[in-house]
Amino acid sequence: MAIEPKKLIVNLFEMACVSHITHGLWVLEGNNRHRTAELEYWTELAQVAEGAGFDAIFLADVVGAYDVFRDGPETAIREGLQIPNFDPLTVVPAMAAVTKHVGFGATFSTSYEPPFAFARRAATLDHLTKGRFGWNIVTSYLPNAARNFGLAEEIPHDTRYAIADEYLNVLYKLWEGSWDDGAIVEDRAAKVYSDPAAIRYINHSGEHYSVAGPHLVAPSLQRTPVLFQATGSPAGIAFAGKHAEVVFTGGRTAADFRANAAAMRRAAEGQGRDGGDIKCIVQAGVVVGRTDDEVARKLALYREHSSVEGILAHAGFAIDPTAYPPETPVHEILVREGKADTPFAATIAPGTTAGQLLERVRKGRSERYFVAGTPGVVADEIERWLDEDGIDGINLRQYHSFGTARDFGELVVPELRRRGRLREGYVPEETLRERIYGPGKARLPQSHYGARYRGGAHLDADDAGGRLPAEPAPASAGLKAWV
Amino acid sequence: MAIEPKKLIVNLFEMACVSHITHGLWVLEGNNRHRTAELEYWTELAQVAEGAGFDAIFLADVVGAYDVFRDGPETAIREGLQIPNFDPLTVVPAMAAVTKHVGFGATFSTSYEPPFAFARRAATLDHLTKGRFGWNIVTSYLPNAARNFGLAEEIPHDTRYAIADEYLNVLYKLWEGSWDDGAIVEDRAAKVYSDPAAIRYINHSGEHYSVAGPHLVAPSLQRTPVLFQATGSPAGIAFAGKHAEVVFTGGRTAADFRANAAAMRRAAEGQGRDGGDIKCIVQAGVVVGRTDDEVARKLALYREHSSVEGILAHAGFAIDPTAYPPETPVHEILVREGKADTPFAATIAPGTTAGQLLERVRKGRSERYFVAGTPGVVADEIERWLDEDGIDGINLRQYHSFGTARDFGELVVPELRRRGRLREGYVPEETLRERIYGPGKARLPQSHYGARYRGGAHLDADDAGGRLPAEPAPASAGLKAWV
Repeated sequence: MAIEPKKLIVNLFEMACVSHITHGLWVLEGNNRHRTAELEYWTELAQVAEGAGFDAIFLADVVGAYDVFRDGPETAIREGLQIPNFDPLTVVPAMAAVTKHVGFGATFSTSYEPPFAFARRAATLDHLTKGRFGWNIVTSYLPNAARNFGLAEEIPHDTRYAIADEYLNVLYKLWEGSWDDGAIVEDRAAKVYSDPAAIRYINHSGEHYSVAGPHLVAPSLQRTPVLFQATGSPAGIAFAGKHAEVVFTGGRTAADFRANAAAMRRAAEGQGRDGGDIKCIVQAGVVVGRTDDEVARKLALYREHSSVEGILAHAGFAIDPTAYPPETPVHEILVREGKADTPFAATIAPGTTAGQLLERVRKGRSERYFVAGTPGVVADEIERWLDEDGIDGINLRQYHSFGTARDFGELVVPELRRRGRLREGYVPEETLRERIYGPGKARLPQSHYGARYRGGAHLDADDAGGRLPAEPAPASAGLKAWV
Repeated sequence: MAIEPKKLIVNLFEMACVSHITHGLWVLEGNNRHRTAELEYWTELAQVAEGAGFDAIFLADVVGAYDVFRDGPETAIREGLQIPNFDPLTVVPAMAAVTKHVGFGATFSTSYEPPFAFARRAATLDHLTKGRFGWNIVTSYLPNAARNFGLAEEIPHDTRYAIADEYLNVLYKLWEGSWDDGAIVEDRAAKVYSDPAAIRYINHSGEHYSVAGPHLVAPSLQRTPVLFQATGSPAGIAFAGKHAEVVFTGGRTAADFRANAAAMRRAAEGQGRDGGDIKCIVQAGVVVGRTDDEVARKLALYREHSSVEGILAHAGFAIDPTAYPPETPVHEILVREGKADTPFAATIAPGTTAGQLLERVRKGRSERYFVAGTPGVVADEIERWLDEDGIDGINLRQYHSFGTARDFGELVVPELRRRGRLREGYVPEETLRERIYGPGKARLPQSHYGARYRGGAHLDADDAGGRLPAEPAPASAGLKAWV
């Protein structure tokens, strides 16, 4: 019996801003990135993505400005680097109004806004999209974001995850525990809309949150949206093992990725879950063309317009290597600017010059999940990622909107389908979770931590205190927050 | 020279729930209120409203359950009384995707969520709707809402308004002060998207909030959304005088309304504003038919299905008058239930029986802004409201969705237009504020408090501390929060 080849999950990677991760490219002819404040940008994008066969549109987010590089937001502002940016939850309903199938994964931080309000907002989105909604859990990482929400500085990384853990507990209690299936009876003759016996307070009282409930939203098709998480840190991996379904992670090499994914799956197994329930996806760059010439032209264009200053500002560089002659040792710059003892300084290898550092930045952090070529070449490479590295899917980086998505749909999708590497099409009325896990699996599996609150069980247990499981051994370092 | 007759502002009053204010009527044949979790409910509603010529759809909201009546949420749950309910901000983009003209006013509370996040969300909505967004400012009033956001009990009424005042200061700084017009230069040749010199931090540091900025959203067509407020209390009137543009208020009689509106306008004048800049709108019930018979049939149907328990639960009645023989004195019930010293008890006239109280509840708080009749009768009455009371507009109560809106569009709108009492149609690309105040008035007027931050002025002033103006004399009492 032939083993069916592994299929790829394909999300379009987006953010409601001009310059998300392909800095400088907004200036390209026909690029629509300057239009992300317009509703029509989103309805067009959603239709392009659905036409191309993407599983979902994955929306990144930040709630602050990049103002570490050059000690201010000026570079980010000039570059359109994630400022202006727009609320990603708000663009989802507009996209849902003009599509039937494509899913949506939207980023929202657990650090600054109350869980009760987010529970309601996300549940409303799962209703409006008919079960096509996913949530990318982040804890935020920009110093400016903390200052926008009343804090003098960022909450320490591991504390953020502990807060997030309690946040998730509150959400599960509301999404899974507060309303039973069948609570809505809609009996017109008896004039009863819902059954009070099937709806309850959650009375959560924990270290960080106190929330009475009941949840205000009736159960949606998925109840809990598909839980995405972008991580690679030890605290993040422990958190993912308990909560995440789709982890957006990476690695500089295949071995790196495999170690990362294995750590996630071990963490999940430690929580009584099936390791295979964690899907690991990577950010990928695909430059495809009908001919080698077309590919070369595109590549040259993207390289020509790529902005190294945008990359430096995005990475929050503590020094400005463009301000010195290329042969200047970076260590000298760090000393001169009083930054020799910073975490940034620790990442710089001794002897590195400003020019070498810039060159490294220009080349990008990893070319493992990048391919440029004709459709066959691209499909070959993606098959390698699937079979050698064991990735489950990709978040496709956009160099050009909507060119990148259209190219992928026209050239790569048919080739991957021919090879049995991609779904043949959408299943009508399928939820996002069913698309990932199969028919009948619209809800969290019984083995997931969040399912414990179903039917009102465990609501009284003293499990609210943000206690995370023990941390697994750190896997590959070098992952940066990408969203 | 003939004086042009005063024209009516007409909003469709909505809430993302089954039973908003016409309790019990969700069971009517063809009523779509059970569908408010569906995106298609909202796209259909928006198209009906735009087809009928409404100025805006006004969305109420609560962030808690009505659980005072009978000491629990059971009645509200059975009635579908604002539970389940859905996030109103989230349905706006879906409606915007299928319309071009109708405006949106959505309720959001200043009491529980951080201003930075709301500033971004509301500004995104003003972009996506192309300047058709209004915000109904509320401070919330349900005890359960407080408990959903970590508080043991409600913040005292006047403190809520002081917090709201600082909240608005933060928003104006972000919406009006953080970005100058022309900040977006979009210079592809120079690869500059925005001009850092035209964008600034707000560095707000006040009694309740500390917010750095910069605002993440570039200026939208209106910058500050049209500011609606529902109030009648002294603290609310003082707040309205400073902040509100459209006040949703009322009165049991014409004199009541006039006193209320005059108090609002005096409060505005005390703030250096033109009293006429405050538009006062009322909630109105209109039952219209082609014949008297049709009107009578509709009225009988609505009265037959109206749920007195829904009304009692909505009003948060401290006692249950349905649980006693009609002749029982209410005072006796209050004593027996230990509620003789409550604010509720103070509203009950001596000698009132349970039966009389119920009858009063059944009849509703005021019939001043209710009319049932053929189109001519309805239009006559609305003209009286405009000319005798001086109302500026109505929020039209829905007895049947989408029947009420369709009837109004088919029968009342043509009659009001014939009499010069309603705009002839929509002006292409008009913002909501221009629809209310006239061409070229998309932004807050210079006399409005929020305008002081333009160009970055006053950002350093010590004006953050939630100091409200002195309260004007109380006008009509008896207004309850309706939203």
